[in-house]
Amino acid sequence: MTICYADGRFTEIEKASLPLSDLAFQRGVGVFETIRIYDGHPMAMTNHLQRLADSARGCRIALPLAIEEMKKIIREGAVRYSKNGRARPFITGGDILDREKGFTSPRFFVFFEPLDAPSQSSYMQGVALHPVDAARPMPSIKSINYLGSYLPLTDDPGALEILYCPDGHITESSHSNAFMVTGGKIITAPLDRVLGGTMRNMAIEIARDEGFTVLERCPLVRELPECAEFFITGSVKEILPVVRIGNNRIGTGKPGPVSAHLRKTYLQNLERWLE
Amino acid sequence: MTICYADGRFTEIEKASLPLSDLAFQRGVGVFETIRIYDGHPMAMTNHLQRLADSARGCRIALPLAIEEMKKIIREGAVRYSKNGRARPFITGGDILDREKGFTSPRFFVFFEPLDAPSQSSYMQGVALHPVDAARPMPSIKSINYLGSYLPLTDDPGALEILYCPDGHITESSHSNAFMVTGGKIITAPLDRVLGGTMRNMAIEIARDEGFTVLERCPLVRELPECAEFFITGSVKEILPVVRIGNNRIGTGKPGPVSAHLRKTYLQNLERWLE
Repeated sequence: MTICYADGRFTEIEKASLPLSDLAFQRGVGVFETIRIYDGHPMAMTNHLQRLADSARGCRIALPLAIEEMKKIIREGAVRYSKNGRARPFITGGDILDREKGFTSPRFFVFFEPLDAPSQSSYMQGVALHPVDAARPMPSIKSINYLGSYLPLTDDPGALEILYCPDGHITESSHSNAFMVTGGKIITAPLDRVLGGTMRNMAIEIARDEGFTVLERCPLVRELPECAEFFITGSVKEILPVVRIGNNRIGTGKPGPVSAHLRKTYLQNLERWLE
Repeated sequence: MTICYADGRFTEIEKASLPLSDLAFQRGVGVFETIRIYDGHPMAMTNHLQRLADSARGCRIALPLAIEEMKKIIREGAVRYSKNGRARPFITGGDILDREKGFTSPRFFVFFEPLDAPSQSSYMQGVALHPVDAARPMPSIKSINYLGSYLPLTDDPGALEILYCPDGHITESSHSNAFMVTGGKIITAPLDRVLGGTMRNMAIEIARDEGFTVLERCPLVRELPECAEFFITGSVKEILPVVRIGNNRIGTGKPGPVSAHLRKTYLQNLERWLE
């Protein structure tokens, strides 16, 4: 069951709704976050909410309440409704677009939901991505605008997500950050090209702690045939191996040791980031 | 007052709402149209609804009801609630994304609203546009995703809309089609680069009937300093003169005779397209 926080209180999702006047519906004006909850504890909640505030500011949406207030709501919901699941806070554009001040009447919702995590076999066998020669729109903002990410998947029904590769530079996938392992190094796009994923940053921290060299530059499509491993990161999927990108088999076609080691280390060190 | 058609009946907009589970809210999955209503008659309704169906198909959203059914609803609403105004039908992604079949549970809404038309002085003095070196995402689809069109306007608060100019090729503005008058000819982007605006197509038809040569190629940013006129078209704004684009003054800096003539001819011939 999904519980949500709406209009200042917790309720079942079926009992809350969005006014049709809200610009999230009318014009796609909305930002959100997905926060993983482990045993009642939100993971890296402060970072997520700071990014939510940054996304809102980047769209000129006013902050509907202080980050500390959001934290209280998410902590309460995490304990009561979603001990192992996810919390997704949303800020909408509300009903008003003021040309000078931006979106001044935002609405705030949080969904407390089951996980919808990748299957165990996804981790054992790896997943596929579908490359597209395009950039994610407004990459520094986590907005609700995912419409463009669905259609290309009809060309590759076996792919989990599309992988944005503008001009052959791999930036991120539609819902995740992307990492290549090649020449003994781990490579991922720099923060000015992608959303600064919370899991991305934790994965880099773990990798460096474990002695890996991590380079922040875009992996190249032309490096795919020779690379050893590829993986994507996200709050729910954690660290997920990729074994095919378009027609490129990655490495041996099976998940490699680096992503498995990083995920294992992450899961052993969860408490570093739990709140 | 805005009346809407929702859940199979006409109601006040405040009494209807969108379930929070709808992917229009969660993921920006939705398409819409804006149909001008003149004295109870919808303008070019068949073309608009065909385009709505095309947009839905382009996003893999199932059609929630037949076009003829939509027409009945809009005709009734036009007469009862919005004799001079606009009807905006929306199709949402609904609650289900089926990887094979697409969005199979769409919702259908229509808003019957006052016009929100440009002021008389906008037609007398012309408006400004703010050029951006980017393409409109998914140009053949009229989706709800307008988020990226608001932020650039903060750089030019006097501009009405942004003007998409990828690589110096002028395609369309965020809410309108764009036309340049230069060397005695009227130039506008071809249909494979832009949304096929209903008003765009009527403007081309009128212009050709009136003896103008209309070329369907992208006007170029480098042609702006020398062009005679520029105008944008849309169902509500009809044909609206543009006198400044970024730092470029257009022509004399005042609306020119071609756009005024086309708009006058359009208004004299409305009944050709009223339904």
